[in-house]
Amino acid sequence: MKPYVCGVDIGGTTVKLGLFTDAGELLEKWEIPTDTGDGGARILPDIARSITDKLAEKQITPEQVLGIGLGVPGPVSADSTVFRCVNLGWGTFNLRERMNELLPAIPHVAAGNDANVAALGELWQGGGKGSRSAVLITLGTGVGGGVVVDGKIIAGKRGGAGEIGHITVEPEETEPCACGKRGCLEQYASAQGIVRLARRMLAASDTPSALRAMDSFTAKDICDLARDGEQMALDIVDRCACYLGRAMSFVGCLIDPEVFILGGGMSRAGAVLTDAITRHYKEYVLFVAADTPIVTASLSNDAGIYGCAKMVLG
Amino acid sequence: MKPYVCGVDIGGTTVKLGLFTDAGELLEKWEIPTDTGDGGARILPDIARSITDKLAEKQITPEQVLGIGLGVPGPVSADSTVFRCVNLGWGTFNLRERMNELLPAIPHVAAGNDANVAALGELWQGGGKGSRSAVLITLGTGVGGGVVVDGKIIAGKRGGAGEIGHITVEPEETEPCACGKRGCLEQYASAQGIVRLARRMLAASDTPSALRAMDSFTAKDICDLARDGEQMALDIVDRCACYLGRAMSFVGCLIDPEVFILGGGMSRAGAVLTDAITRHYKEYVLFVAADTPIVTASLSNDAGIYGCAKMVLG
Repeated sequence: MKPYVCGVDIGGTTVKLGLFTDAGELLEKWEIPTDTGDGGARILPDIARSITDKLAEKQITPEQVLGIGLGVPGPVSADSTVFRCVNLGWGTFNLRERMNELLPAIPHVAAGNDANVAALGELWQGGGKGSRSAVLITLGTGVGGGVVVDGKIIAGKRGGAGEIGHITVEPEETEPCACGKRGCLEQYASAQGIVRLARRMLAASDTPSALRAMDSFTAKDICDLARDGEQMALDIVDRCACYLGRAMSFVGCLIDPEVFILGGGMSRAGAVLTDAITRHYKEYVLFVAADTPIVTASLSNDAGIYGCAKMVLG
Repeated sequence: MKPYVCGVDIGGTTVKLGLFTDAGELLEKWEIPTDTGDGGARILPDIARSITDKLAEKQITPEQVLGIGLGVPGPVSADSTVFRCVNLGWGTFNLRERMNELLPAIPHVAAGNDANVAALGELWQGGGKGSRSAVLITLGTGVGGGVVVDGKIIAGKRGGAGEIGHITVEPEETEPCACGKRGCLEQYASAQGIVRLARRMLAASDTPSALRAMDSFTAKDICDLARDGEQMALDIVDRCACYLGRAMSFVGCLIDPEVFILGGGMSRAGAVLTDAITRHYKEYVLFVAADTPIVTASLSNDAGIYGCAKMVLG
């Protein structure tokens, strides 16, 4: 009997850990700091120690644990090879092999990119519950994405799948994205991106806006004003939603998923954003995929540990 | 022992059939006309009779046949439901159930969209042989596409996956696509699309071109002139390749396939087209997927029957 599973979501600042039953119940979650010193060499040993301690505390033996799922902020291939994790200081190595050295009593290790894993978590127990395929789009500091088809993460040959934020939606863009390209979705639809878009649109028009009186403003300020019905803010949200809807229409034509799930801080803007996205999505997508629901993520920061556990359960 | 498989590629004019060994060898192929009368009601009975006759001729019993794979020119879901096949006169029904009534001795029936099935065929025995994931883009009368990941077709919730030809690559387009939207890849990269693009570019410039002296010209004329080094023809091919490379970059960001396979008549243009596509693809795709090879399909019109057989073999 192996009735337990560990989910481990490794971020640049903290590692989130969760102990689950094999039925998908989260028994306990906790965090440890991410030690990025020495090229991130202590991160996996710290995780192994924390799991060992937690199991001892709970009087669970390693043999009762079906496996460990790891979510990583960078590309991961289907065989658990991580290619580069700038935020952790990691180069290229096989995560399963390293964890097997550290915790040989729990040999089953699965790994995935954090955004892909979050998509799996939201499909399993969150906003996409009950579906078999979903695409998660995370509107945060950047724009991340995860693709799950038939209950399985699409990782990509080099772990590059799900990079929806780097789809080119504006070929005429002159400013570079963090990735080095120009016109990426992330440049308009991340928390920073919509602020940049707003500054541009404000500079190019005379439409009055409460944003003009602010020294600096955030994505939340824009969305709040749009919800209050301010025309300029509505125009900014609409432009952002147009780029999102366009990129999502590419996904619709290519994958035809059961559901789109919006996550990340900006998804809390609610209907003012999702209604505009839906309108633009329908404008660009092929008829067959026009009615795909667009829902909001519901697991928040726990999506990663849920998805990690689900990778192990298969 | 069930050492045989039938592949059946149903087109609007002819049905192509193939008898394969379970090792993937094509033993014999033949064709029958597609009878689209009476809402296509006779198509499946004709196929069942043709298979029965061929097996009798070869002294193969139905019990020796592992199954039948069907490729269909329209959306097909993973459970073999066909939604609408305008070219065949078909509405919505389950292909497996109907074939089971007609040929109960061969109960295993798999079905897929023709472009998706062709992608599977090319991955199995054609241009993508040896890979596990591939995206096929067929440049013919229209622009079709098929997505295979981990050896399996991505069909989509409503059979709408792989519709690369209807990705919006030019939001500013004023003329409508056959699908009713504007700015679809197909409007620039199908055989008709590149001719339309050429007429527009010729009208907007004074660059000399042999095309100007022709009453009418084809995609092949444009590609031939480009291969001969004519600047105007090269500019037209480059613009078409820019749209293709852009759409393929979306695929790269989303799926990160092992290989892209170009099929259809226009793919015979060779290096003059693929080199230009590669250049534009690299310009738009995220670094991680920049080196994905772009190869040419090799099974030509047989890709469909190969893919149909492979659907059955799994």
